[in-house]
Amino acid sequence: IPRRLHPLAEMLDLPFLPFSFLLSILGLLCMAFVTAWCQHWRGGFSWDGSILTFNWHPVLMVAGLVVIYGAAILVYRLPFTWRGPKLPWKLLHGSLTLLAFGLSVLGLVAVFRFHNENGVPNMYSLHSWVGLATVLLFSCQWVAGFGAFLLPWAPTWLRALYKPIHGFFGSTILTLSVVSCVSGINEKLFFSLRDGATQYKLLPTEAVFANTLGLLILLFGVLVVGALARPSWKRPDADSPDSCQ
Amino acid sequence: IPRRLHPLAEMLDLPFLPFSFLLSILGLLCMAFVTAWCQHWRGGFSWDGSILTFNWHPVLMVAGLVVIYGAAILVYRLPFTWRGPKLPWKLLHGSLTLLAFGLSVLGLVAVFRFHNENGVPNMYSLHSWVGLATVLLFSCQWVAGFGAFLLPWAPTWLRALYKPIHGFFGSTILTLSVVSCVSGINEKLFFSLRDGATQYKLLPTEAVFANTLGLLILLFGVLVVGALARPSWKRPDADSPDSCQ
Repeated sequence: IPRRLHPLAEMLDLPFLPFSFLLSILGLLCMAFVTAWCQHWRGGFSWDGSILTFNWHPVLMVAGLVVIYGAAILVYRLPFTWRGPKLPWKLLHGSLTLLAFGLSVLGLVAVFRFHNENGVPNMYSLHSWVGLATVLLFSCQWVAGFGAFLLPWAPTWLRALYKPIHGFFGSTILTLSVVSCVSGINEKLFFSLRDGATQYKLLPTEAVFANTLGLLILLFGVLVVGALARPSWKRPDADSPDSCQ
Repeated sequence: IPRRLHPLAEMLDLPFLPFSFLLSILGLLCMAFVTAWCQHWRGGFSWDGSILTFNWHPVLMVAGLVVIYGAAILVYRLPFTWRGPKLPWKLLHGSLTLLAFGLSVLGLVAVFRFHNENGVPNMYSLHSWVGLATVLLFSCQWVAGFGAFLLPWAPTWLRALYKPIHGFFGSTILTLSVVSCVSGINEKLFFSLRDGATQYKLLPTEAVFANTLGLLILLFGVLVVGALARPSWKRPDADSPDSCQ
């Protein structure tokens, strides 16, 4: 029996589809901001081992670990996926998360390549520790999800047991991604904005722009995690054993 | 009717009390690490406007916005609070969050005082933007929570309407706190570890110690947000209208 809502609550009760439309715009805005930052202020992109190779790092991380990952984990919240067979949506979820993972690994390659070609040590900052932990957790999550939900011989009790754990780590990995992005943008601005009138502490245009990018990523992450947790947007059969086919 | 769990699931189903005991140890560990960092490596504490005044900033922020705030938002998950009148627990929740808020404001005063006495600009880094947004959101959340849940004349429909919103922002504020802490520790280490053998990129002992502090704070935040979301740890009557008395 659905709970009766106050008329004001019903008015405020945004359905998932318009929400996901607004979220898509926010995701595209994050991509536009990170690309414009690296293109306009940081000199653009290259794969020659120079600082222009580094510029792929923020773009690929925001694309993989935030925007595409965020889209991938909301697939089951689309009401039209609730009818008919679940397998096509599982395949879509698995493919999108695999794409997100591939982009994030490429993003790691970009920063390691830049460091190695220029004698900069790897993996010393807290940003790098959190970021690598995020990607490692993501790889475990993908393999475990594949083994439990896509291999046809995985037993039903295992799927039921692992499902809430998979959901918890899904939200956690996105939170870790956002922590990595914000600390990384902050660190990059202290590295890049050091001289004269463009020092970070004088808040030049680039600093306002990249700080805003950080806030947009944070908003995107908070909205996705909130949408995942919202009871009325979950698959109606999410807790029944036969949802694990 | 409670769902029947697989025997393995029942074995893994940790009750809230032992979990909260382990979480308390983790919270104390965060406090011990941040205090030891500022005392042992950063010269200790003072209120004279020098860099020793700044050292209160990380300690007060971790105490207020992470550890005490985390304890405050888990009060209603303690099973022994579910029987008897709810008002004493509301007062405890309101007092703990007010204490957390007071400490975080003192933490802001410490950093503004240090900046102003030393001619350092305020509010330019992404860390400072996210941190201030966290404290501002926290103040709105406290005032709105007081108005809706502690003022006796607040109508029941308003309480029922606002309750899920209050819960969403409760988890979101803790997430923002963790984002602020990790970006702040990262930034502080780049500021402090610049010379000779103690450069951040050479990963001296202080860097390993403070990076570990960042990971501990992250783990604490993820566990608190996960505990809040766990259905079996919620007040059994959480969704009934009379829970809003």
